[in-house]
Amino acid sequence: MVEPATDTKSAAKVVPLLKDELDIVIPTIRNLDFLEMWRPFFEPYHLIIVQDGDPSKIIKVPEGFDYELYNRNDINKILGPKASCISFKDSACRCFGYMVSKKKYIFTIDDDCFVAKDPSGKAINALEQHIKNILSPSTPFFFNTLYDPYRDGADFVRGYPFSLREGVPTAVSHGLWLNIPDYDAPTQLVKPLERNTRYVDAVLTIPKGTLFPMCGMNLCFDRDLIGPAMYFGLMGDGQPIGRYDDMWAGWCTKVICDHLGLGVKTGLPYIYHSKASNPFVNLKKEYKGIFWQEEIIPFFQAATLSKDCTTVQKCYIELSKQVKEKLGKVDPYFDKLADAMVTWIEAWDELNPSGASAKATNGKA
Amino acid sequence: MVEPATDTKSAAKVVPLLKDELDIVIPTIRNLDFLEMWRPFFEPYHLIIVQDGDPSKIIKVPEGFDYELYNRNDINKILGPKASCISFKDSACRCFGYMVSKKKYIFTIDDDCFVAKDPSGKAINALEQHIKNILSPSTPFFFNTLYDPYRDGADFVRGYPFSLREGVPTAVSHGLWLNIPDYDAPTQLVKPLERNTRYVDAVLTIPKGTLFPMCGMNLCFDRDLIGPAMYFGLMGDGQPIGRYDDMWAGWCTKVICDHLGLGVKTGLPYIYHSKASNPFVNLKKEYKGIFWQEEIIPFFQAATLSKDCTTVQKCYIELSKQVKEKLGKVDPYFDKLADAMVTWIEAWDELNPSGASAKATNGKA
Repeated sequence: MVEPATDTKSAAKVVPLLKDELDIVIPTIRNLDFLEMWRPFFEPYHLIIVQDGDPSKIIKVPEGFDYELYNRNDINKILGPKASCISFKDSACRCFGYMVSKKKYIFTIDDDCFVAKDPSGKAINALEQHIKNILSPSTPFFFNTLYDPYRDGADFVRGYPFSLREGVPTAVSHGLWLNIPDYDAPTQLVKPLERNTRYVDAVLTIPKGTLFPMCGMNLCFDRDLIGPAMYFGLMGDGQPIGRYDDMWAGWCTKVICDHLGLGVKTGLPYIYHSKASNPFVNLKKEYKGIFWQEEIIPFFQAATLSKDCTTVQKCYIELSKQVKEKLGKVDPYFDKLADAMVTWIEAWDELNPSGASAKATNGKA
Repeated sequence: MVEPATDTKSAAKVVPLLKDELDIVIPTIRNLDFLEMWRPFFEPYHLIIVQDGDPSKIIKVPEGFDYELYNRNDINKILGPKASCISFKDSACRCFGYMVSKKKYIFTIDDDCFVAKDPSGKAINALEQHIKNILSPSTPFFFNTLYDPYRDGADFVRGYPFSLREGVPTAVSHGLWLNIPDYDAPTQLVKPLERNTRYVDAVLTIPKGTLFPMCGMNLCFDRDLIGPAMYFGLMGDGQPIGRYDDMWAGWCTKVICDHLGLGVKTGLPYIYHSKASNPFVNLKKEYKGIFWQEEIIPFFQAATLSKDCTTVQKCYIELSKQVKEKLGKVDPYFDKLADAMVTWIEAWDELNPSGASAKATNGKA
């Protein structure tokens, strides 16, 4: 059995890295009691809470946290007609938080995620590990068998080209989950009792050209480097699909990171994922995705972006055209999604005008 | 500090998996006292010892082991003029053992490798883990964030295409090393005291299209699937380079596995690597390789094999031509190496006539 940390108050005093450069984005429909366990680690940071569902409901946030909260009315007011690109009744709405942030880094976490313990029993400061991951380079061009060569006690092994040892900037740090694994509905149904108890003490770069299933439960990224690609798509209310929001963002992000020479890391840190969602409900949300992903993944595996795509925005718009052209045949949903991708970028640039112009002219954040 | 297991006699009685289908290949210049610690794990298996250096020297093998031993005189006698493709005064000579084996699987280990302990203090049966790795499929086409989905307690995560969940046959299992890491001479010189103490409880497939630095210290492979690609090149006596034998085999093997749809896994098991080789001696052996690998790796990254290459032998011959054509410009050494690659395949087919013809006609082992 694996248990969450139950006493984090006694955790060693935290030095809050990047305190003024990172926002924590939390999508929720309930009171945020889960923050109590995270207090020693999150309290120094600013939170952006994206309230999903009924906007008249009051979400309670434990005292002492610095936060801004947006409900659906706020989203509609801020984005006007462009609010159509933000999902409703689905945690995909979290990406609105990425858009309104003014910080360089985002950490996003689900409200059913608690503090995990490492094998020695110590409470894991997930955010600190994400920051370490993202502040050290990635190595997408050649695999290092001792995993992240920039970690203490590791390095590049014999046979690793010296010209590649500087690495590339890390855009994404994808963390994992102890206890309830992130399985699809069919696997949940088949293995209802399976728990992830294996603590793998590794961080590694996902190689260039390789796609992965990005989970949005415990995720950190550099907004300046990749933010506009972190669109969680159209899910939930009025849409034929759910639970593919983070997957969609992950596929788009990886293709764009590969094109722009940016890195994506996965592995540590772990959070403790407390409760399995209902597999029957999940199956209903997922089942079209289970078919579609058989077409979507080859599409992204084959996707190439032209040389003119020198900014994330340009890459994303180019990708939206390819989605419309190639995936539109799979289902009309992808036509709508492709349009929403464009709306998302328009909304992003409206809310982030300096970034938009800087990126358009310099090709660099 | 990390320590080797010092009492393996009390290890639980081993069920020797694949006892009659696997040979253990050990290159050596000294008495094989190191086998004492491996006795409970290796004694049921057949050993192929490739004696390097002075053939008149008597190598002592602890009692009770079943082995055949080949020294340079034996190699010359068996291969005749083709013996030129087998390196002398370099552990690259081990690949002669792969060639004379009649078994489906090979495990090869260096004689300075001892039994490591897992975090609970238990002696690790490295061979058993390799066999588990190689008997379960690989997943080269899409990354699974919980690593090897076929291990107990793991599976494919949400978003993993169902059509890819059968995986592909695993051709290679690459194990790691605690204590002395496998660093090149410059890294050894810079970090003389660095020890690998991190036990990463993971096995993973190296994605298709990604190269890795394959170390020959603790390696298992399926001879039927990939044997003829496991040529350790021309190193040591009379050659301008050393310590790139396993790297060369790894690059060729990975390109061919990718072409043939076979998998390569890395991670567990760990062995305990006891002593660092002399970094000054290593630098002398490696320094040309340090330049050359900057050209060799892009060469292998770009290498593609034609559709006619339906067997490992055909792939390897095709690769040898490309080596001659593209790397011959880097140094005349690669001309010689390309010729040796052809000689190696000729010798392999001579010693393995059924495999050679089966492969030539059916395209399958």
